[in-house]
Amino acid sequence: MHSADAFLFQLFFIFVWAKLFGEIFERLKLPAVVGEILAGIVIGPYCAALVVPNDSIYSIAQIGAIFLLFTVGLETQPKDLLSVGQTSLYVALAGITVPFIFGFTYMIATHATPHEATFVAAAMVATSVGVTARVLGDLHVLRTTPARIILGAAVFDDILAMILLSVVVGAVSATGTAWIQLTVTSIEAVGFALIMMFYAPRLVKRMEPGLKRMSTQNAPLVIALAICLGLSIAAEKIGMAAIIGAFFAGLAFADYSPRWNLRPRVSAINEFLAPFFFFSMGARLDLRVFDRKLIISAIILSVLAFLSKLLGCGLPALRSGWNTALKVGVGMVPRGEVGLIVALVGLQMNVISHSAYALLIFMTGATTLVAPPLLRVLFKDAQTALEALPERRSTVDVEV
Amino acid sequence: MHSADAFLFQLFFIFVWAKLFGEIFERLKLPAVVGEILAGIVIGPYCAALVVPNDSIYSIAQIGAIFLLFTVGLETQPKDLLSVGQTSLYVALAGITVPFIFGFTYMIATHATPHEATFVAAAMVATSVGVTARVLGDLHVLRTTPARIILGAAVFDDILAMILLSVVVGAVSATGTAWIQLTVTSIEAVGFALIMMFYAPRLVKRMEPGLKRMSTQNAPLVIALAICLGLSIAAEKIGMAAIIGAFFAGLAFADYSPRWNLRPRVSAINEFLAPFFFFSMGARLDLRVFDRKLIISAIILSVLAFLSKLLGCGLPALRSGWNTALKVGVGMVPRGEVGLIVALVGLQMNVISHSAYALLIFMTGATTLVAPPLLRVLFKDAQTALEALPERRSTVDVEV
Repeated sequence: MHSADAFLFQLFFIFVWAKLFGEIFERLKLPAVVGEILAGIVIGPYCAALVVPNDSIYSIAQIGAIFLLFTVGLETQPKDLLSVGQTSLYVALAGITVPFIFGFTYMIATHATPHEATFVAAAMVATSVGVTARVLGDLHVLRTTPARIILGAAVFDDILAMILLSVVVGAVSATGTAWIQLTVTSIEAVGFALIMMFYAPRLVKRMEPGLKRMSTQNAPLVIALAICLGLSIAAEKIGMAAIIGAFFAGLAFADYSPRWNLRPRVSAINEFLAPFFFFSMGARLDLRVFDRKLIISAIILSVLAFLSKLLGCGLPALRSGWNTALKVGVGMVPRGEVGLIVALVGLQMNVISHSAYALLIFMTGATTLVAPPLLRVLFKDAQTALEALPERRSTVDVEV
Repeated sequence: MHSADAFLFQLFFIFVWAKLFGEIFERLKLPAVVGEILAGIVIGPYCAALVVPNDSIYSIAQIGAIFLLFTVGLETQPKDLLSVGQTSLYVALAGITVPFIFGFTYMIATHATPHEATFVAAAMVATSVGVTARVLGDLHVLRTTPARIILGAAVFDDILAMILLSVVVGAVSATGTAWIQLTVTSIEAVGFALIMMFYAPRLVKRMEPGLKRMSTQNAPLVIALAICLGLSIAAEKIGMAAIIGAFFAGLAFADYSPRWNLRPRVSAINEFLAPFFFFSMGARLDLRVFDRKLIISAIILSVLAFLSKLLGCGLPALRSGWNTALKVGVGMVPRGEVGLIVALVGLQMNVISHSAYALLIFMTGATTLVAPPLLRVLFKDAQTALEALPERRSTVDVEV
């Protein structure tokens, strides 16, 4: 009874502290996610040590990661891409390539192993568009061109980052001849992604009549949860990360999510589980690794992470003008959950050191914190333009 | 990585099997809950041993129990009582007293310790109205008098059973002079229940302006979850069971649940977690304890459980006629989640043996399975009456 007691207490304690830090950050107009991670750092075992999460908490954090990516997948609507088109694709492609090259080169230059360098680089590529979307939504500028390019690019970005992660995990855990294995893994990863993107939604469509005949209550939710868990395991079995399966499961259900009312219900599960994931991300950060050298490294890596997205995502948007390019570049800067999960997978596979893990947490926090205030300044002109046109402004306000 | 792998596999495996058995039971017009428990018995360690749940699964089952009772609390609207009044109160009171006396007497007669007898008796009192409500809903007779008495009595029943459980847990874990301790615990339990029923909803009401000022997304859900976990711990700290706190937390939020849209979202969390609770209830059942003697005991206890509710709940409804009394009596027969949790608490406190645990699982399954077909037969006349009045029938159908 006593261990159960302690578990329940940890559950309560972690949930409340994570949400409290999140609330403080929101009030300071900073992203709540960073607050939840900071709660883990401050309250966790390496700092105040008020709570040392046990295995069950880490298991719940793991389910939290799966539901987090399942939610990201559900919110990724490939259909949205048709309206923004090519620019977004180029923004996403360059926005993945440039940070990967920057990250990999820097890590190799600082004598990391190729495996570690690959993982750190992979963790640097994924934009967390949630933070940007929130800021743009608050400013009521979601319908401007740069905002639409950013949101479109984020869809490609998520999918490309997942394929990249599959290849990286596969390559690192491979034992045979490196290049053959890498080729096999890449084909496997791309194949999995293509099947999930183009074939799985059709399967989901075909399931519909069967679901209607099911007697279980909330059958669509139950089936979606089962498939999410099943694909997570399938992804792990073929050498990828579980969250990749969860993400593509979400993608497969994305079209049917409004009809089956999946999103609000999966979000509710996510609302309960995600704080444990973010908290334990912070709790795993051993603050003792931060010496003078590592802090300098962390700052350099964060600057590289910032510049690489600014360049990679800004350049393809240049044809729409400097101003748009700058907005798109900054909008794609924040890293978030996907990068964190890549870092965690690397740590669990013993591919990256605690120092590299610390670098990545620092980089994620820095890029996520720096983007919102910059976006507010950059989009001031769009707001002013809207205010200068009072008759249009009201229309826009109604639409937003 | 490997243990995480195994955990994810268990998660998937248990969820799918529990839901599969649930679906089969639903198709056979039997309660899904019994199917989910049976999945745990059949797949679990003591039978096919296809899966041996690890600690993390049991931890998740524990959260499942908390959310289950939180949902029950949210769905208990004390306001509903005003319309049904006294009859329901008497039905609930006698429906708790008679089974307790029957259960306690039988267990003492079969040489159980007083503590064990108390726990088994306490597990026999709580009606699971979900099963009955589902059957009556399917028959479109929810607006008949017996149905309204049953649903009203279920509200009192839940609250009274929770108070009884608090007293029992407190009394059993007490170390001082038995009678003094029992008095203190009873006052504590009743006090806790009264505060939660009458004062807590007012506190929730006062929280509303504060919630509106909060920056956290989905603030009402986050606060409700935090309070549910907090009260679970509080209940445990003062010597009751965690689920009692969760139940009363639900009760405190019941009035605000529609306005804050809490129920569908808490239900979604419950939908994911509850199968792990029911499955692990079954998985804990050691089938080897079932010898000839225990089977006879189980059958006798089940018959007593059936008769005690039939008598206890039927008699107070006699003034509305024999027919109504019979319907009310049978409608209150099914035991479910609350009884199971009492059994589990007893097992974890080492107060009841594996044999007594087996008796209670058997009794829960038997009472839950036997009631639905009987209800369908008993309510045939109400259906026929509705069919005989075609113009009223259409109204009822629209209302239902």
